[in-house]
Amino acid sequence: MLTRIDHVGIACRSLAEKIAFYQTVFGLRLVSEEVNDRQGVREAMLQVTATTAGMSWVQLLEPLGPDTPVGRFLARRGEGIHHVGYGVTDIAAALDSIGASGVRLVDTRPRHGSMGASIAFLHPADVGGVLTELVQAAGR
Amino acid sequence: MLTRIDHVGIACRSLAEKIAFYQTVFGLRLVSEEVNDRQGVREAMLQVTATTAGMSWVQLLEPLGPDTPVGRFLARRGEGIHHVGYGVTDIAAALDSIGASGVRLVDTRPRHGSMGASIAFLHPADVGGVLTELVQAAGR
Repeated sequence: MLTRIDHVGIACRSLAEKIAFYQTVFGLRLVSEEVNDRQGVREAMLQVTATTAGMSWVQLLEPLGPDTPVGRFLARRGEGIHHVGYGVTDIAAALDSIGASGVRLVDTRPRHGSMGASIAFLHPADVGGVLTELVQAAGR
Repeated sequence: MLTRIDHVGIACRSLAEKIAFYQTVFGLRLVSEEVNDRQGVREAMLQVTATTAGMSWVQLLEPLGPDTPVGRFLARRGEGIHHVGYGVTDIAAALDSIGASGVRLVDTRPRHGSMGASIAFLHPADVGGVLTELVQAAGR
């Protein structure tokens, strides 16, 4: 069902500072920067893989304010890994299957994610404390 | 420098329970299970990618006791994502470059990781709260 690790989502206080860090220290390439008002977050996607086959990303997340999911995460735990996103080829089928297994779905229907992807989150309490995201890349 | 997301490392209380969960709910394949006495951990590698190109893994970690790095992580934060590992082609060169940028290295020289890989950890305080591992796969 899962085809790859699409990205790790990393919560940070300053997107500009962390973009520069990942570019300079790890040589990653910034591909996209966007604001997601609904999730209350400003985010940047940095490409890890060298080729377009099985793309993987570091997703940096800066909250738009303290009363947002990432804002609360930073207050509670500080900067660090916020979630992991896995690639799927058919997100609707994946949600059906995972929901049928008893895992609670934060999003019962896919919604818009970074770079035009369809995404959905699973409830971390049912995935061993891991906030888990499914990602069906745009154009698939 | 980084070639892929090699794995996400997930701390759990019961390896057997979480292996079964990732197999059943996400359809992942268990490839390796081993004990690393030096790191005080029992670990399982489950393959995410369908092909051998740019392999990615979920690494499940169960501590051998409470007074181990993963045991202390569980006591402090509970189950969840413990670290992220990135693939590199030349781990010695990567450590030289990253160390020169001012990031403190937990391991100044590579040591043995899962499935014969050479690995090294970077200090999370210098990587925005992210415990970051470099992985040079075996046979490269």
